[in-house]
Amino acid sequence: MVQAYILIQTEVGKAADVAREISGISGVKQAEDVTGPYDVIVRAEAHNVDDLGKLVVAQIQGVDGITRTLTCPIVHI
Amino acid sequence: MVQAYILIQTEVGKAADVAREISGISGVKQAEDVTGPYDVIVRAEAHNVDDLGKLVVAQIQGVDGITRTLTCPIVHI
Amino acid sequence: MVQAYILIQTEVGKAADVAREISGISGVKQAEDVTGPYDVIVRAEAHNVDDLGKLVVAQIQGVDGITRTLTCPIVHI
Amino acid sequence: MVQAYILIQTEVGKAADVAREISGISGVKQAEDVTGPYDVIVRAEAHNVDDLGKLVVAQIQGVDGITRTLTCPIVHI
Amino acid sequence: MVQAYILIQTEVGKAADVAREISGISGVKQAEDVTGPYDVIVRAEAHNVDDLGKLVVAQIQGVDGITRTLTCPIVHI
Amino acid sequence: MVQAYILIQTEVGKAADVAREISGISGVKQAEDVTGPYDVIVRAEAHNVDDLGKLVVAQIQGVDGITRTLTCPIVHI
Amino acid sequence: MVQAYILIQTEVGKAADVAREISGISGVKQAEDVTGPYDVIVRAEAHNVDDLGKLVVAQIQGVDGITRTLTCPIVHI
Amino acid sequence: MVQAYILIQTEVGKAADVAREISGISGVKQAEDVTGPYDVIVRAEAHNVDDLGKLVVAQIQGVDGITRTLTCPIVHI
Repeated sequence: MVQAYILIQTEVGKAADVAREISGISGVKQAEDVTGPYDVIVRAEAHNVDDLGKLVVAQIQGVDGITRTLTCPIVHI
Repeated sequence: MVQAYILIQTEVGKAADVAREISGISGVKQAEDVTGPYDVIVRAEAHNVDDLGKLVVAQIQGVDGITRTLTCPIVHI
Repeated sequence: MVQAYILIQTEVGKAADVAREISGISGVKQAEDVTGPYDVIVRAEAHNVDDLGKLVVAQIQGVDGITRTLTCPIVHI
Repeated sequence: MVQAYILIQTEVGKAADVAREISGISGVKQAEDVTGPYDVIVRAEAHNVDDLGKLVVAQIQGVDGITRTLTCPIVHI
Repeated sequence: MVQAYILIQTEVGKAADVAREISGISGVKQAEDVTGPYDVIVRAEAHNVDDLGKLVVAQIQGVDGITRTLTCPIVHI
Repeated sequence: MVQAYILIQTEVGKAADVAREISGISGVKQAEDVTGPYDVIVRAEAHNVDDLGKLVVAQIQGVDGITRTLTCPIVHI
Repeated sequence: MVQAYILIQTEVGKAADVAREISGISGVKQAEDVTGPYDVIVRAEAHNVDDLGKLVVAQIQGVDGITRTLTCPIVHI
Repeated sequence: MVQAYILIQTEVGKAADVAREISGISGVKQAEDVTGPYDVIVRAEAHNVDDLGKLVVAQIQGVDGITRTLTCPIVHI
């Protein structure tokens, strides 16, 4: 399994809606509103890097109001 | 009380209008146009971090012409 | 209570040591290595924004090998 | 007169000292610690843009612990 | 007089048109297409910082296809 | 000949389509989807810097779904 | 297998040495000097995300003169 | 010939010295101090992209006090 943090920027005024909707996506463990350069921080997991890419592009980026996502895979080094 | 600077980027040509309109929002102490990577710098205050988040998302980000806000809470360390 | 994600950049080659040492700091819930623009992502909590600032500056930034920290308070909006 | 915000990044663990020392510089109106991508936000004024540049380079950047400053002149448009 | 470089990002495919149109604005000395994080670099001058701000917001940002401008005043220190 | 990497950001959900379409452009050697701050990384070549600029602006930026491109010419030093 | 681009910033004047030394690391397919916000772009591969993380932290970041690395895993979506 | 702007960040307090010293380098047409995210903006020219890379790495980056350079080749499109 690959786990990742996904740092999300949203359109102005959309952060709460985006976090709420992402919470319901399969593979998403947590989605919270934050202040600072990002608006929502998500924790998600997938079987491998390709599935993680699909989760982000096909599911998370499909949520209305997202302008940018930055995927940070967790590594055990 | 929590105080914060809010660094704002606007659509091109909208900086002056955005600063003027934000000045009238309750909780906003000051809103000024600047040059550089940000277009408007605001000083605001709220009862706590959650209220500050609501002030930014529900009120300030509701002003027409804002593209990004970056909230920097003031800390006394 | 205030909770926050703290996005950390480290000196090259220090990410694993930094994550391990931060894990032992009181108030830190989790510290993980990631790839991308940040090297370690931490979840922490404190009584209020000022205590969060003190936790970051006095404790977390005291860990050898950290070059920048970016604190993102979680907001409930 | 030219007024400006100066957004400052410091070495880890130095934010409070930097803000305190900058507060005593002539031309500086306010210096506060913040969380986020910047560590200290300063408000300063000078006779013109060249004097503002000198204030930043010769005085503020001379404070031990500063790694980057970003000057944002206030404009009345 | 205040002189400044203005670093401009444009919509995709608009860089050449933006540079050409900005060249004709009074106060603009030079406007060139570049590759890298910016698309057009302009050199301009105005009587003072406020006039420079007006030139950027009222004239340059009025050119179709510009998404962000970053004004860097030249200082003699 | 000048060779370059072109780092591309796309609209949310468009990365795969953008990479596929860019692959077919003359002068493009490779176009792949990545995670992180960029969505697609392209390797391309042209006769000189001006032709590279034309390739990017006239051909690559013409692909639907691209929001920013960052051209990094390869240098032999 | 996981493949990735690694975007590298070096100390001033060290780009050519860094690229040359990285070229010899096992798992690295290519390392080239570029101009722009990054100094060297590397293409590498590893068995999985954790091994990729180890390759970057234990091997590539061990090269003298590197200040930041940004790993962008290639995804097939 | 290839012409380029080179956007330079310096150590704190070193901007004026860096601009002065760069002015004397062969191939450099102009070097000026600016405020904002960059400290010095240089205009230079070389026979081709490789020579431009050598000018930046071997000559300009050799000036004491420079921390980052960002080369933006001018393109005629």
